[in-house]
Amino acid sequence: MSVLYGIGLGPGDPELMTLKAHRLISAAKVVAYPTLAGGESFARSIAAGVIAPNAREIRIDIPMTTAREPAQAAYDTGAADIAAALDAGDDVVVLCEGDPFFYGSFMYLFARLSGRYQTVIVPGVTSLTTCAAVAGLPLTARNETLTVLPATLDADTLRDRIAHSDAVAIMKVGRHLPKIRQIIADLALTATYIERASLPDQIVLPLADAPENAPYFSMILITKGADPWLT
Amino acid sequence: MSVLYGIGLGPGDPELMTLKAHRLISAAKVVAYPTLAGGESFARSIAAGVIAPNAREIRIDIPMTTAREPAQAAYDTGAADIAAALDAGDDVVVLCEGDPFFYGSFMYLFARLSGRYQTVIVPGVTSLTTCAAVAGLPLTARNETLTVLPATLDADTLRDRIAHSDAVAIMKVGRHLPKIRQIIADLALTATYIERASLPDQIVLPLADAPENAPYFSMILITKGADPWLT
Repeated sequence: MSVLYGIGLGPGDPELMTLKAHRLISAAKVVAYPTLAGGESFARSIAAGVIAPNAREIRIDIPMTTAREPAQAAYDTGAADIAAALDAGDDVVVLCEGDPFFYGSFMYLFARLSGRYQTVIVPGVTSLTTCAAVAGLPLTARNETLTVLPATLDADTLRDRIAHSDAVAIMKVGRHLPKIRQIIADLALTATYIERASLPDQIVLPLADAPENAPYFSMILITKGADPWLT
Repeated sequence: MSVLYGIGLGPGDPELMTLKAHRLISAAKVVAYPTLAGGESFARSIAAGVIAPNAREIRIDIPMTTAREPAQAAYDTGAADIAAALDAGDDVVVLCEGDPFFYGSFMYLFARLSGRYQTVIVPGVTSLTTCAAVAGLPLTARNETLTVLPATLDADTLRDRIAHSDAVAIMKVGRHLPKIRQIIADLALTATYIERASLPDQIVLPLADAPENAPYFSMILITKGADPWLT
């Protein structure tokens, strides 16, 4: 019985891959991954040194659009290609940046295939704790709460959620940075901007110094600072 | 200049350690970790196969009490032992289950030592995404929000936070399980109980079937189920 693996690769530094991910990818005869509009695959770039030279690669090319149907059609095609490999008796390893179940595109394949095939998820290091690590910002201790919010939410929802949590991580910042900056100023909080955490060109800045045009792979962390209980 | 490393080991399965954690622990001359009341260290048990036979081990023995002062005194002593090794020119690797900055005891050492010594945090796979992986429960897709709550919070706060998030993870369940179960029933939600995720004796159950006396290393996940947008 062949197995579909959704494998978290961690945030970008290939050394933040788990031993289990390394073992399964090294041994894989078939690997699959999404690419964006024919470009490079970030997930594949993380695993590039581990994929066997003779492995077959299934590229799932996602069109650059916010419309629903073209992306769905691309995942339908990718899922069919993966299913064909599984039906032929091969395990298939799907490469996922970060963790497959934490804002990962793997969920589109999981929704299509997990009912029909044995599916194993290998968790990975998330951008969430990587950003905290590279910024030297403890996220949550003891009885503290953490809220993870996509920057795409409307301003009122974001403001309310930020006000009611101890630590907050805002994902998918991109063009929403001015909105987030205004909310954080209104609430008189301080925040840190992190871009491409763990990669050679990573950036860690006070939010006030962050670029107006943030890339998609950027995050804002709001932490309370050192918990006095800890010392 | 010696370096203090706070190294996330992942949730328990030694294979969910990162390659970076494996490399740094293998090479370490001095490793430090907390133990509870003279017992075994969970962190050390994850790394046991990786620690060099001739490494020096600094045990930080945390007394079994909820009082603040005895634990603080134990971390003071541990921090002093680590500082002495760093002053003598050795790097020190602190072993942390999960991720050092996600509800980790490493934060007590970070608060004491990071101002004086170069400190590097190596993020690890958290119990959060591991529980989702072993339960086959996607956490968050697209614009969904995630809230992480310690079960130690009061019932009103928990109820309010749970009602206002798409996905919720409740940590440190332990003896608080009946309180959580009541809140989830009141809100007419369904939830999954996970214990010792990734270890050989892991348990995944509907919350209704969970044991009354949950261990500390257990979690409750509340997810919305498959996002229809994904298919």
